[in-house]
Amino acid sequence: MKITIGSFILQQLHAAKVAHIYGVPGDYNLALLEMIEHDPQVNFIGNCNELNAAYAADGYARLNGIGALIVTYGVGDLAALSGIAGAYAESAAVICIAGSPPLHAMKSHALLHHTLADGNFDNVMNCFKQFTVAQALITPENAATEIPRLITCAWQQKKPVYLQLPADLCDVEIDVPDKLSQPRLPSSDKNNLELAATALLTRINQSKQPVILVDQMVERYQLQQLVIEVAQKFAIPLANMPTAKCVLPENTPGWQGGYNGDLSRPELFALMAESDCVLSFGVRLVDSTTGYFSQQFATSAVVDIQPYSLKLENIAYPAVTAADLLQTLLDKAKNTLPTTLTPLPHSEYKLATPDNSLLEHANFWQRMNRFIQPDDVLVVENGTSGAAIGAMRMPEGVTVVNQPIWGSIGYTLPALLGAMMASPERRHLLFIGDGSFQLTAQELSTLLRCGQKPIIFLINNGGYTIERYILGESSSYNDISPWNYAKLAAVLNPQVESFCVAVETSQQLELALEQASRQHSLVFIEVKLPAMDTPPAMIAFCNRCNNFNFGLHNPRRSV
Amino acid sequence: MKITIGSFILQQLHAAKVAHIYGVPGDYNLALLEMIEHDPQVNFIGNCNELNAAYAADGYARLNGIGALIVTYGVGDLAALSGIAGAYAESAAVICIAGSPPLHAMKSHALLHHTLADGNFDNVMNCFKQFTVAQALITPENAATEIPRLITCAWQQKKPVYLQLPADLCDVEIDVPDKLSQPRLPSSDKNNLELAATALLTRINQSKQPVILVDQMVERYQLQQLVIEVAQKFAIPLANMPTAKCVLPENTPGWQGGYNGDLSRPELFALMAESDCVLSFGVRLVDSTTGYFSQQFATSAVVDIQPYSLKLENIAYPAVTAADLLQTLLDKAKNTLPTTLTPLPHSEYKLATPDNSLLEHANFWQRMNRFIQPDDVLVVENGTSGAAIGAMRMPEGVTVVNQPIWGSIGYTLPALLGAMMASPERRHLLFIGDGSFQLTAQELSTLLRCGQKPIIFLINNGGYTIERYILGESSSYNDISPWNYAKLAAVLNPQVESFCVAVETSQQLELALEQASRQHSLVFIEVKLPAMDTPPAMIAFCNRCNNFNFGLHNPRRSV
Repeated sequence: MKITIGSFILQQLHAAKVAHIYGVPGDYNLALLEMIEHDPQVNFIGNCNELNAAYAADGYARLNGIGALIVTYGVGDLAALSGIAGAYAESAAVICIAGSPPLHAMKSHALLHHTLADGNFDNVMNCFKQFTVAQALITPENAATEIPRLITCAWQQKKPVYLQLPADLCDVEIDVPDKLSQPRLPSSDKNNLELAATALLTRINQSKQPVILVDQMVERYQLQQLVIEVAQKFAIPLANMPTAKCVLPENTPGWQGGYNGDLSRPELFALMAESDCVLSFGVRLVDSTTGYFSQQFATSAVVDIQPYSLKLENIAYPAVTAADLLQTLLDKAKNTLPTTLTPLPHSEYKLATPDNSLLEHANFWQRMNRFIQPDDVLVVENGTSGAAIGAMRMPEGVTVVNQPIWGSIGYTLPALLGAMMASPERRHLLFIGDGSFQLTAQELSTLLRCGQKPIIFLINNGGYTIERYILGESSSYNDISPWNYAKLAAVLNPQVESFCVAVETSQQLELALEQASRQHSLVFIEVKLPAMDTPPAMIAFCNRCNNFNFGLHNPRRSV
Repeated sequence: MKITIGSFILQQLHAAKVAHIYGVPGDYNLALLEMIEHDPQVNFIGNCNELNAAYAADGYARLNGIGALIVTYGVGDLAALSGIAGAYAESAAVICIAGSPPLHAMKSHALLHHTLADGNFDNVMNCFKQFTVAQALITPENAATEIPRLITCAWQQKKPVYLQLPADLCDVEIDVPDKLSQPRLPSSDKNNLELAATALLTRINQSKQPVILVDQMVERYQLQQLVIEVAQKFAIPLANMPTAKCVLPENTPGWQGGYNGDLSRPELFALMAESDCVLSFGVRLVDSTTGYFSQQFATSAVVDIQPYSLKLENIAYPAVTAADLLQTLLDKAKNTLPTTLTPLPHSEYKLATPDNSLLEHANFWQRMNRFIQPDDVLVVENGTSGAAIGAMRMPEGVTVVNQPIWGSIGYTLPALLGAMMASPERRHLLFIGDGSFQLTAQELSTLLRCGQKPIIFLINNGGYTIERYILGESSSYNDISPWNYAKLAAVLNPQVESFCVAVETSQQLELALEQASRQHSLVFIEVKLPAMDTPPAMIAFCNRCNNFNFGLHNPRRSV
């Protein structure tokens, strides 16, 4: 069948379940935007800048499985690159479409604006090769194959891809297969699958203290149910890496908490250290998720389960999907007797009565622990809020959106926009630091323009508190401008109502929460906390970061 | 002599006349920031995000000759990359310093935050190789040579460079020469210089209608005086590319205006077309500066003068600096009789009396033409303001800061911050569009925090007017959120006074200008203009852009 390249892109995106595309217009992408303007299935959401668009597409991908953005060549895609790299680090399937100069100009090495004006059109592509799993410059000859290839790569690998669409090709007609192909996971090799499942069953049956450790992969490939069934079938306790907070419901029988090395619950740390069989689901042991490499479990104990392979006792089984592997394992064990695992007991605590004393992290987060409801989406920073949420037990169905590895401040506000559009039926809470907020604050206007109604908690502790704990507690570079945060929404969209308030006592917070629950608008609560107040887990982490980074020449000595 | 690597970097930056370094703190750069905190000669200016820091460093470099920023690895430097690429396109010497993970971790391929957590530490460097003229990962072994090499490269080539400083090396002592080296231009080869100057003199003397065409290079290498002397000595008329607006004072005898192909003054277009000797100073003929390649002059007429070489009648003379070439040429011609060139006559116009009629571009810019004073620094967008300023004749001593080639909206506000700190004695005016402003608006808070007092004109025409002229006049993707711009400063720094007002009639504008002149604070004037009102030069440009980009499949047809 005949279709224009632009329509084919939109059709393929729609088939992959992309309904909202983020971005910023620029002269090289206007033709595609004009096509979206008249497309009933795909919407364009204009962001204030391209980095914000990348973050929004990432947030959308977290809840929707895949996301996309459209930017313009050079000035636009390069500005989004850090966000694309973040999507790679955190395994978000983001399709970055750059409207590029027309093909005739690229081929003739014309000297153009939005380039170095030296006829070089490879440099932007070379950058994206570093931070995407597939890339293509679309031509009339390759469009029919390259467009589905890129979308499939993103879908299968849960990583970003990069597509350059020359401005003059959007309306060019090409031949494509009549049947619309949807991205799907590859199937397993039958022999390998049989061998892998048998080996895994043997290994589990021979082990004395098996444990399941899950990472992002389990959420990205929707393996939660299978993993929990395996745990119950074989009575294996489970834990998650900090990167996989809430991937397993935290009332799952057998769940032992989050594992971050010796910063974990002592019982969990001991369990891991003693295990002779760690069923590791795509686990990455990163400084920021292991208390600086303080994990302790035997390498020989690790059974390495990846999305498309198993590695066990130095034997690799390629072409085995994790879903097939777990299902086959369960089938093989269907005669195994039922087991019992019990949920972790809840630690009881009593909330202090709200009063006029100034808020601190301790009482603020205890109150939040009650405020958070099942099925909430929590967008949290790689800072005090991430540390606080990480240390708390969440109700069932909560999804956490964060960047524990890439850790880019500024990510969360635009990511919130994307997450909300991907799951409009759920309540969304954002916990953002004042330093982080200033990086991408203008996206508050897009949230308002699009009628989104999140509850935003801005933790105002007067600058970069995490950095202060690492180095330069009272140094000026850790200070930021003192914005009047609660007044910002009214400036960024005077036409849309919002409920904005600043609180500094537990009584004020209580009142604000009570009022917030009655709003049908965006809620923005600025929470004033002391500059050097932070969850305990953060302090330990910052000390280790200081030692790891600065070592012998530790400049904290001189402060 | 012994010195720590961090101190050596600061010492070298200071020797190159960098007094302000822009950036954002991150755990990998804190040791260097702590060193700056205690350094009496170099100041750190914290920006709201890294792209803004790159723009600020670029603006600083425009007025100071060289600038610098400090960011953190991965999340930070990648976010700044688009700004660094812009500095390359526009020839600004910007030194981008990234505090990187400690060397021990990079060498052992540790899995770290702010990376893809795959042990790869080459990918960020690979990106910067595309958009800088020199790069280095600093080690104790190479620091003494690589640090001066990078700064010298930036200085000599007027382009950005990239320096990765591992977090653990800042306080490591190295041996460096006792004598501090300052970056300097290379000297010319004597023989080549003599041959080149002789050839050039012959060529000029043989030509019937020589003309001088200057580009950015003349400003970057401070050749203005020599170029004007050559013009006067040989009675050669001069023109500038749009990229070199105001590089020649516009009352210079013989100055013919800005040359942008057939969008130039007809007299200048004819002069260029008929010339048999175009003394071309680093001229780049780019779509955006030539009315889409409408220039018309004989290739055989071009004498190609570059910073370090001359090319004339297909003979190249390397190792000849432009300054030496012009000086030698003048020396050789010292017995030439004096000539006379006359300044271009001023076009007389009478300003309409301010009244209650709504402002339009025509009367707004006529008023601005009177408002702009000698020695003002004008920071202008690659949009309506750039087109308007480009078409007006400026008083002597005016400097224009813009991005005619890279053309990244969002550049100007942070660039204003840098420009002001590099030339605090001059008056600074910013003309920024509403669309552009939203990209980097938070940097207004840094301007206020740093006590800067520019006069900012925000041209509010309700969205992306330039894009509307290219495609999608009434399409929603060219709309933006309607901010209450004049209220923003009070939110972004409630403690610092500013004068903010919105105007929409010429009478209101007059009153605002009158009040503004009495302020000792930041002045912010929101100028409301009709959405589809734009300087005439812009409309012609947008039409050509549409044809060039979309060609046969011109989607404007369907709008």
